[in-house]
Amino acid sequence: MRDAYHEELDALTDRLVEMTRLVRSAISRATTALLDADLQLAEQVISRDEEVNALYSGIEGSIFDLMARQQPVAVDLRLVITALRMGADLERMGDLAVHVAKVARLRHPDSAIPAEIRSTIIEMGQIAENLVTKAGGCIASRDVEVALELEQDDDAMDRLHRRLFRTILSKDWSHGVEPAIDITLIGRYYERYADHAVSVARDVVYLVTGTRPE
Amino acid sequence: MRDAYHEELDALTDRLVEMTRLVRSAISRATTALLDADLQLAEQVISRDEEVNALYSGIEGSIFDLMARQQPVAVDLRLVITALRMGADLERMGDLAVHVAKVARLRHPDSAIPAEIRSTIIEMGQIAENLVTKAGGCIASRDVEVALELEQDDDAMDRLHRRLFRTILSKDWSHGVEPAIDITLIGRYYERYADHAVSVARDVVYLVTGTRPE
Repeated sequence: MRDAYHEELDALTDRLVEMTRLVRSAISRATTALLDADLQLAEQVISRDEEVNALYSGIEGSIFDLMARQQPVAVDLRLVITALRMGADLERMGDLAVHVAKVARLRHPDSAIPAEIRSTIIEMGQIAENLVTKAGGCIASRDVEVALELEQDDDAMDRLHRRLFRTILSKDWSHGVEPAIDITLIGRYYERYADHAVSVARDVVYLVTGTRPE
Repeated sequence: MRDAYHEELDALTDRLVEMTRLVRSAISRATTALLDADLQLAEQVISRDEEVNALYSGIEGSIFDLMARQQPVAVDLRLVITALRMGADLERMGDLAVHVAKVARLRHPDSAIPAEIRSTIIEMGQIAENLVTKAGGCIASRDVEVALELEQDDDAMDRLHRRLFRTILSKDWSHGVEPAIDITLIGRYYERYADHAVSVARDVVYLVTGTRPE
């Protein structure tokens, strides 16, 4: 049987995994809201971010509590420290999904996404979801192999990000400055979302091995 | 006389203050590099970011060490936890200065900044420097009043950020899409830089009072 201390540490892991679920759902809905100019869905993403923030505050509180009462050492210390950092990354990913949703809301009833950009945004959304799903899996399983895969997966996001710029900078771009600005910001949000997911995975590697991946 | 434990805690504070100095210098030089299309200065900002990263790694190492050996409680525990977070914010501010410098490098020998945007960028650079200087002061002095001022100072950055968008979206904008994209990203970098400085100041408030500002 696990004692209360180890149950608290397990609960920390569970809540981080729950955060990955919430921010995966957020970016998924934000992408749909953006593509379909769905105001209701955009508003949902924006209002539900409070859940993510509350979960993070709870994690922070538990960590301070655990540190003060239990003074964890070795791998347990690494868990509480990395949990703090992973929580911060996941909280930020929630914010970035909100930023995407806010662009959708700002341009409603129009779509911020011209036809020739749609497929790139769909792919960016899929990679973002895939990255956070994997990150959540790693937190639960502590599988270092999978955690190390995320950097490669992130390269795909960077390629899509570059493709986005090529499209808005091409001679064929007919939509002018405003949509170009929207897409610049949206591209940045997805790219940062992916970076934070990679950072979570790197923390899993550190948690398990005690060393940071190169 | 301070014992070794308290000297280590003081050293943590000193190194965070040193980080604020480095990232202040980085954003200052990056702004100049951007405005003057100064390639050498841009390269300097980019290469010197290693110092910031090394300082942050050192802080992280000390914190793990302190936690494992000394098991700090109460305000000391808050210091090590917030130092970890403040260090992460400052490290990110260094990255954002590098991003600004990279835009300068990319457009060299041209300037990425058209004449009508210059004064806004100068002001954004000044506010960024002012915010990080104040944040460094707060870390050293633990002055909560000053720390709370940073949110108001950040409002000025948000106003400049909106002014930037108004300019690139105005009918008079004659520079087309590419400079608009550069300026969108640059504006975002300064705004995020400022947000991280505010976040450092919020952590000072938490460190001193044990509660987060609203």
